[in-house]
Amino acid sequence: MQQIASLQQAFEKYLQARAFNQEPQGLYGPADYIMKSTGKRVRPVLAMLGCQIFGGDLEKGMAVGLAVEVFHNFSLVHDDIMDEAPLRRGKPAVHTVYGLNAGILSGDVMLIYAYKFLLEAGKPEVAAKLVEIFNGVAIEVCEGQQYDVDFETREDVAIPEYIRMIELKTAALIGGALQMGGVAAQGDAESVSALCSFGRSIGIAFQLQDDILDTFGDPAKFGKKVGGDIAQNKKTFLILKAMQLAQGKDRERLAELMSSYPEDEAGKIKEVTALLRQLDIPQWAEALKAKYQAQAYEALQRVKGDEAVKKVLWGLSESLMQRQS
Amino acid sequence: MQQIASLQQAFEKYLQARAFNQEPQGLYGPADYIMKSTGKRVRPVLAMLGCQIFGGDLEKGMAVGLAVEVFHNFSLVHDDIMDEAPLRRGKPAVHTVYGLNAGILSGDVMLIYAYKFLLEAGKPEVAAKLVEIFNGVAIEVCEGQQYDVDFETREDVAIPEYIRMIELKTAALIGGALQMGGVAAQGDAESVSALCSFGRSIGIAFQLQDDILDTFGDPAKFGKKVGGDIAQNKKTFLILKAMQLAQGKDRERLAELMSSYPEDEAGKIKEVTALLRQLDIPQWAEALKAKYQAQAYEALQRVKGDEAVKKVLWGLSESLMQRQS
Repeated sequence: MQQIASLQQAFEKYLQARAFNQEPQGLYGPADYIMKSTGKRVRPVLAMLGCQIFGGDLEKGMAVGLAVEVFHNFSLVHDDIMDEAPLRRGKPAVHTVYGLNAGILSGDVMLIYAYKFLLEAGKPEVAAKLVEIFNGVAIEVCEGQQYDVDFETREDVAIPEYIRMIELKTAALIGGALQMGGVAAQGDAESVSALCSFGRSIGIAFQLQDDILDTFGDPAKFGKKVGGDIAQNKKTFLILKAMQLAQGKDRERLAELMSSYPEDEAGKIKEVTALLRQLDIPQWAEALKAKYQAQAYEALQRVKGDEAVKKVLWGLSESLMQRQS
Repeated sequence: MQQIASLQQAFEKYLQARAFNQEPQGLYGPADYIMKSTGKRVRPVLAMLGCQIFGGDLEKGMAVGLAVEVFHNFSLVHDDIMDEAPLRRGKPAVHTVYGLNAGILSGDVMLIYAYKFLLEAGKPEVAAKLVEIFNGVAIEVCEGQQYDVDFETREDVAIPEYIRMIELKTAALIGGALQMGGVAAQGDAESVSALCSFGRSIGIAFQLQDDILDTFGDPAKFGKKVGGDIAQNKKTFLILKAMQLAQGKDRERLAELMSSYPEDEAGKIKEVTALLRQLDIPQWAEALKAKYQAQAYEALQRVKGDEAVKKVLWGLSESLMQRQS
């Protein structure tokens, strides 16, 4: 994946020239901190590939990528406050280092900067179209976060509702990164739409992978605490499917554990994980993930654009699905 | 002010058709709550007048006005969390009613909706220009909020720094409402710029009036707690000027009181207020307010547009300066 590495490098350089190192430090310091605690820059690379598929200028793809990456990091800052998560990517979360108020306000200004960076991706007519798409995606992300919160205290979440939630919370932005990259390159509408569908399916598969890792991942490689979803009573696909399959006392016990916050959290995590294994939940989750990967592949076929770039994009999506953190 | 009342009514109708009554309720309910706890809709009316001065379509002025009002309310929701303020406009603040997390997330989605509404104010080229101005203003508001926080723990804030802070935190949005109204109407660049200057000067005067009311207002008419700024050790113009004028033991006592959080908060407020009166601070503040009003008047003269609308705008600004809450 030489091409991916070179896109990541180009993006880092682009980002550094626009880093949050201005005054007031109390506002921009936390933004700088999270933006530098790099992740894999998956979303910017997707935006750049989405642009390149249609032969667009890389600068435009990077502008979209920066907007998307800043938005993504804004959402992490605010989500970590709401989830009371002390760590992010194995490092202290923004609010852990800088406090609640700095986390709120720095997140706000990052959201605004996302729009500022987005305007650099094209002439006014294109920019206005990008802002319109971005608004839709950003609203979906907020709605997804709200459903995620709502589901924690609901006992009757159906699997399709869960899938819809992760589509909003995670997949919409993956699809949006590709779509906006394509719009910045002024790709044809049908192909851009197919590219967006590809991203949404990959995004759902990506989140299912995340759910699997959160429970069955290797603690040494996973950036967050393994078992965190179980501890927080998150109704992920794993739990919802298990509730569907479990019988009698197992089912009662699972429901009881997943609606309580016992003092022995480690014991709860261990017991639930064992129950899930017993019900073959890892296999069920892998099968569903594979279904969305197949949908993604089918959508990508419909994109009329540079076949070599499409191949790189498919390779990237496959490597994301095999990741360990 | 018949014209103002009819603009307010038109705006309320416009707002109702776009109200936050959709699902999920946990996300949009808090937004709906604060948007309905009306205020005087000063900013939307300014956007509408800014549009009308140049003969623009009222619909466009309302779209700008809605964007600005939603942004303003977003900032109130997040500021109230950061200031731990339980009340807003005499009613429980959003986070008091719905909790911290709902306050954060609903504020976020309101900020995004502000951009969504803004796009309705014109064709793509105009919309892109509006987003650019809006970004600048929104960033200024966040920076102003950060300086406001920073000043609470700084002992050496100079009066020009304070004025700059309130220009960012409060006046930028007042100026921006008028400016964006003018841009939506495609007014000439010089006049739109003068209109923006008018708004910024009025905004500073408006905040000075707020500072005066916060300390010397009538508790029965003022929506917030009188003396709140003193209790929180806010270095408003009143305190900064008093520190400049006070001598010897008075100065020491003032510095001591304004850096402590004594149990007898009411006693502290009473003592500081008496000291301010003794130093003629209300008169000093009124004089500074008058200076910015004069600057505003001068800027308004430079606007080439509908003289009748300019007169209404001036009348509105004068009434704001005489308000009691």
